This record gives sequence, structure tokens and C-alpha cells, in this order.
Amino acid sequence: MALTGEDRLLAWLRRATGPSHLGDDAAHLESPGDLAVTMDSQIEGVHFFAGLDPASIARRLLAVNLSDLAATAAVPRFAFLALSTPREFPHRRFFRALLTACRGAGVELAGGDLSSAPVVAATLTMLGTRPRGGRFLSRAGARPGHALWLGGTVGEAALGLTLIERGARLSGNRVVLPPAAQEATLAPSARAAVRRHVLPVPQLELGLWLGRQREGGALDLSDGLARDLHRLCRESKVGAELRPEALAASPGWRRLCEVLGKSPLELQLCGGEDYVLLFTLPLGVEPPVKFGCRRIGRIVAGKEVTLIEGRKRRKLAPRGWDHFNLRVSG
Amino acid sequence: MALTGEDRLLAWLRRATGPSHLGDDAAHLESPGDLAVTMDSQIEGVHFFAGLDPASIARRLLAVNLSDLAATAAVPRFAFLALSTPREFPHRRFFRALLTACRGAGVELAGGDLSSAPVVAATLTMLGTRPRGGRFLSRAGARPGHALWLGGTVGEAALGLTLIERGARLSGNRVVLPPAAQEATLAPSARAAVRRHVLPVPQLELGLWLGRQREGGALDLSDGLARDLHRLCRESKVGAELRPEALAASPGWRRLCEVLGKSPLELQLCGGEDYVLLFTLPLGVEPPVKFGCRRIGRIVAGKEVTLIEGRKRRKLAPRGWDHFNLRVSG
Repeated sequence: MALTGEDRLLAWLRRATGPSHLGDDAAHLESPGDLAVTMDSQIEGVHFFAGLDPASIARRLLAVNLSDLAATAAVPRFAFLALSTPREFPHRRFFRALLTACRGAGVELAGGDLSSAPVVAATLTMLGTRPRGGRFLSRAGARPGHALWLGGTVGEAALGLTLIERGARLSGNRVVLPPAAQEATLAPSARAAVRRHVLPVPQLELGLWLGRQREGGALDLSDGLARDLHRLCRESKVGAELRPEALAASPGWRRLCEVLGKSPLELQLCGGEDYVLLFTLPLGVEPPVKFGCRRIGRIVAGKEVTLIEGRKRRKLAPRGWDHFNLRVSG
Repeated sequence: MALTGEDRLLAWLRRATGPSHLGDDAAHLESPGDLAVTMDSQIEGVHFFAGLDPASIARRLLAVNLSDLAATAAVPRFAFLALSTPREFPHRRFFRALLTACRGAGVELAGGDLSSAPVVAATLTMLGTRPRGGRFLSRAGARPGHALWLGGTVGEAALGLTLIERGARLSGNRVVLPPAAQEATLAPSARAAVRRHVLPVPQLELGLWLGRQREGGALDLSDGLARDLHRLCRESKVGAELRPEALAASPGWRRLCEVLGKSPLELQLCGGEDYVLLFTLPLGVEPPVKFGCRRIGRIVAGKEVTLIEGRKRRKLAPRGWDHFNLRVSG
């Protein structure tokens, strides 16, 4: 019997996944144990620019959801996709990239919903499980006296976004740069920044390591360090002291900020979409060096979030990306 | 400390839900047992018309997802919402209606994602559990010799959509009709059709009853009887014979079809968005009368789906709603 477009796509997808949970009104999962459930969307014109390769949209969608599971110390297991697109969207290109990325992360695409829409809107729900001997991490786990740690650099993705706004593009695996960033000393940092923005790398292994520690809170940085640090403090009912000189950044990145007229500290504090973990650990417990973490401050009693530069102390406002107010000063 | 828009909304929402799983990167659910997971989107201009009351969007979103769980015989437990809207969207109105509807269905809103977008796009992921002594239903459970059943009428929602296209609106709980349907003998059927389209009623209790039977396949009708019957047959590797005279419809509905220039049979077979269950049962097993089910045919060996009108037999094409081809003739 003749299959129409949606059924044809689903039939192709089921051949591509092999035996799977796809095809019923709901996926049936045999008791998977304790669950962490996360949900994140990627919308054209909001989270990425129109014209982004569908394969990159798929990889980015998976990466931002995996980052949420990393912040929970969960093992990624199942993904459910709601994909709304204009009719001419190259679905198979999107799905090939998504399935490859899922396989790489040990994730099964187990269900979802396809529909038409004026712009590309993709939402992924992910189910992760609690590993044996691990605990789920929470934003409420920071305690006064804990050291405050960061899983990597911040501000790079925001600089990548600035470059994209000025014409940079990811074409296949190649980054095409605007004239301002083509100079040989800038180009490597610029390419890395664009890649970091389009294809963030979730810190799953670090998350699982944190889940094996007895104490500590965590979240993943999506809306900027300042804003997300405020969230961590609010959930844990604590304050924090942040030492921005500890937010190491490469000289190339600093020069690039200068050329593009951006304040490095502003990007680091408010840039957003860094997708590294912000976490706390008792003094004396340090993450393995291989994770490249930086100790950037400490958790204190109270509610204040303070920026400490040398002898200068100032209150850090919860600025950063806000979907309803756009850039907001606190 | 000052909260920005998104955090303020989330804080309000957490006050409104009471103790809940909201607030972390991922919701942590203690081992809920066997799971059924479903995901369905509602997009402005695709699933509903611009201007629909946000409270109705919320109720419809929950209803179509509950209908998927009904088709699986799962007990609804947790909902996760991805909501993308223009900035001026009245979020609290939407959430008040969603939370009330969730409470009514025994569902906890346990997480999600908020973002901005040019049109309203809402995706719900729902987790349901397998009730003790029940089984999950599947589209693959139909067997030759089973009777084919329908959980209610079909075509009414499609007629409601026709009325909406011609100016009908749901305003609060009141249906405003276009002149063509205001005549006293037509108005009650017209109002019911509009309500049925905007606010379908998921057949959860029927689904749970079916899950307690030993045999039978099921799915919920969202894309039209013809198309969804083909899907049931494909997954079960069977054929079917459908007797359209068994698709009972009220005289008021038939007159309304006439006035609006619609073929009753066409609407019943291809209309879509009926959200009643289509299911099969061994001969001799009948659903309780209170569910208002109709026996509309039988499952046969082979692959053919046949329409039987008196002595006339014709092949039924898998027509109906397709998101990529729009209305497709098979």
C-alpha cells in the first residue's frame, strides 16, 4: 500500500535505527530505574541562525540536552524528538546526524512527533538513569565552605555568536570567517569560538565523576555564568564569591575580543551557551586534572553573590540571557 | 536579588505547583516502573488557529498527549513542557489552565523548557506507568478474527475545524458560530463540533479497560480513520474490513455536513483529530456499554484494507492528514 510522506519518513527512520521503540503511540520502556528527565528546544532564529546545516542543528540539539544530563550525573539512555519544520526541510540529513550522535552517546531515539511549522523548531526530551553507586546532582547541593569550580572556559561561545552575527558560518566541518577575524593570529581562536557556539561539548564524564562524590551542587551553564551562579545560590540558599581572574582565557581569545569590540569579562560573566558545568566541592576534593576544571571562587553563607577583583569587592548582578527580557541588566 | 522574566515566571510556577520536581537541569524521578513515553506538539497555525485562548491551547496540548497514553493503557504520571512563545504571551493564563488540567488527570508537571519564538509552539512529553495487572497496548496487537472497534464518533472534529475556518470561535466556554451554522436546528451540533475540535476528550478509562484484556491492538485516531487504520494494520501485519454504516452519526451532524458542503463519509474516513481509540478485541469480548464504542468491522489475514458498503467492496486508501504532503489521496 502507498505510504504518504510522514509514514515514509518514519519507515525509513525505523530501518535506520534497527529494532527500536519507534512506531507506537507511546514508547514502552521496561522499568529503567531512577530517572533524570530533561527537555530542551532549539528554535531557528532564537537558538541558531536560519541556514544552519540540519546536521549541525541535530548535533547541537543532542549536545545541549546531554549537557543537562551531565549536570545531573545521569547516564543518557533514551531520546524523544518533536520536530516541526517547513515541508522542504531535509529530514533525512537531520536524522542521519542525530542517529549517529545518539549512537556515540549510547542513546536510543525512542519516539517523538513530526509536524509542519513555518520555522524549524526541535525539542528533545532525554531520559537518563542513575549509575550504580552514583547520586543525581542538584542545584541545591552547594554548601558554605565549598569551593566553586568551573568545568572549562566561558565566553568563547558568546564570541562565536558575535562572529556568526558578523558573517561567520560553519560549512560542513569548515568555519568560514568574516574579514575582521581572518588575520592569521586570530583565525584559530575565531574558528574555535564558532565551533564552540554551534557544537558545544557536553561534560558527561565530569558529571558522572561528580555524581560519585559525596557532596556538592552542580548545573550546566546555558544562560551565562552570572545568571546561572545566582540560580545555583538561590536553590542552595547560599552566597558565593567569584574571582574572575581565575576564569582563564587564551591570549588569542582576548585579542579577538578586542578586535570585535567586546569586553572579555562581560562575555565571560554574561555570554551564555558555554555548556560547561558549574559545581561545588568540599575543600580538599579536586576533580582529576584531565577535565581541565578551574577553581573560581567559593560558596559562603548568606545570599550575596560577590565579584572579587584584587581588593575590590562588588555585587554581581544576575545578568545574562533571558528569553523574555532578552539582555537584562540586573 | 532581582529576578529576571524567565526566573520570575519559574518562581511563580513553583509556588503554583507546590513541592515538585521543577527547578533542576533535569527532574529526578524515583524508579517509576515500566514506562510509556509520549510526545506531542501543538503549533500555532498548524494545530490551532492564531488567537486561540492560551488556556485552550494548554488543555488541548494535555488532551492530545493523554490520548496517546490512553491508546497505550498507561496511567498518566509526569508531564514535561517545552513552550516557545512571542514575548507578550500570557504565560500565567496558559500555566493556570495546564496545572488545573494536570491535577484533574493526576499528572505532575515535572519540568521543561521556556523560550521565545515567533509563533506559539508547545510540546509536551508525558510519562505514564503500567497499572498492576495491566499490559501496555500496541498497534501491533491486532489479529485476524478480531473485531474492529471505535471508541466514539469520527468526523466531528473535522467538521469543527471547517466551522473554525469559516469563523467559529471558542470564547471562554462559549462557542461563537458563523451565520451558516446559527440556525436553531444546526447550532447544537455545530457547537459540539467546535468544542470537540478545540478540546478533545482522551479515552483514558477505556484504554485502561483494554489494557486489562488479554488480546487486542489499539491506537488513537489523530490523522483520520483511514490513515490510522492502515497504520494499525501495517504494524500488526493484517488486513481489515470496515463497514462505514456502523460509523453512527447524529442527524444534526449529517445536516450540518450538507449545509457546509462536506461529504459525511469523507469527513469520517479522512477527517482527523478525532482522538478516540481504534482497537481490536477477540470475538465475544465487548467493551462496557458506558464507553459508547461501536463495532465497525473486522481484522482479516493479508494486507488489504477494504470498505464494505452493502454488497460493494472497495479498497480503502490511506488518506488523511499528512504533515508533509497535506491532504494526500492514496
